[in-house]
Amino acid sequence: MAFSPLITQLMTHLRCLPGIGPKSAQRMAFHLLERARPEGLALAKTIEQAIQKIGHCEQCRSLSETQICTLCANPSRDGDLLCVVETPIDVMAIEQTASYNGYYFVLMGRLSPLDGIGPEEIGIKHFIQRINTHPPKEVILATNPTVEGEATAHYLAELLKQHHIKTSRIAHGVPLGSELEFIDGNTIIRSLHSRITITETA
Amino acid sequence: MAFSPLITQLMTHLRCLPGIGPKSAQRMAFHLLERARPEGLALAKTIEQAIQKIGHCEQCRSLSETQICTLCANPSRDGDLLCVVETPIDVMAIEQTASYNGYYFVLMGRLSPLDGIGPEEIGIKHFIQRINTHPPKEVILATNPTVEGEATAHYLAELLKQHHIKTSRIAHGVPLGSELEFIDGNTIIRSLHSRITITETA
Repeated sequence: MAFSPLITQLMTHLRCLPGIGPKSAQRMAFHLLERARPEGLALAKTIEQAIQKIGHCEQCRSLSETQICTLCANPSRDGDLLCVVETPIDVMAIEQTASYNGYYFVLMGRLSPLDGIGPEEIGIKHFIQRINTHPPKEVILATNPTVEGEATAHYLAELLKQHHIKTSRIAHGVPLGSELEFIDGNTIIRSLHSRITITETA
Repeated sequence: MAFSPLITQLMTHLRCLPGIGPKSAQRMAFHLLERARPEGLALAKTIEQAIQKIGHCEQCRSLSETQICTLCANPSRDGDLLCVVETPIDVMAIEQTASYNGYYFVLMGRLSPLDGIGPEEIGIKHFIQRINTHPPKEVILATNPTVEGEATAHYLAELLKQHHIKTSRIAHGVPLGSELEFIDGNTIIRSLHSRITITETA
């Protein structure tokens, strides 16, 4: 091995980042050491600070460095709507469309009994507390259309039925701009099942 | 914006890593915060330590946390050979072939007058000192076959001529396992120019 222990260690630790294999880690390590030392120090400091200071919003459970995140603290949003998503990135994806003005609840995961992720882990207690203290008129279930995401949506729908809150699920089907030819069978089956009547004959 | 300032800051700083755009930075930030907090703290610490402790080997100019790097400190290598490369990664690439047992000199760059990189920046003083204190029998120029790399090799060859040290350049041509069909014209021109006689007719 031609590298010193500390360089090797740096490469190893860089691999904790998602999608970074040995080659990328090597390139990153040398980039930091050869050309970006001040930036590297700033990065190290920010990672440390972020990990130490960022916790969960008390209201929506998303990542936040304040007790209540900026989104939950915004009084101009529509309190009648509560959208349940799996991760903070999903919040971002919906926010970028600028088509939803309600609040969110972030499960920080999905039900997955095989991985030991049950209702406790996705913050069900927290969720019940949320719908009791600030009852929405409608809960939109926007978990992903995977097996676990569907199961989570089903579980939440049953729970909300007991609380007599209107519940909806985002629509699934052929995405806009795509071609049927390239869409998987299950999506086509779902789009046929969930078809919407356009004209009703008398 | 749905993200807190600290999360946004983390994403911005992650982009100092090579090849990381906004999407990857977002994925990395959430991965660190949601699933890899201990690993993230260890990474931050290692980046800081590496940047603070790793300097240059006094003998070969490569990155090293000790005054003399492990490779230069190894007495069982062949002192007759000195291979000049551009970066520590090039050292690694040659070492992985296990076909070279001499020492190295790492320029930490290549001559590039337009970018303000002259002989000083690629450590020529250091290089002259190296060949004076431990004179090799042969210097192998293994800079990259780019315009700047070739210019650097040419410059070093002229310098070594004055010092009466045998100098060679690594061979360039069609790489093994490839097909002529897919090789660029300049490489083919070079491989024709540098052809090696197999049988001499009388």
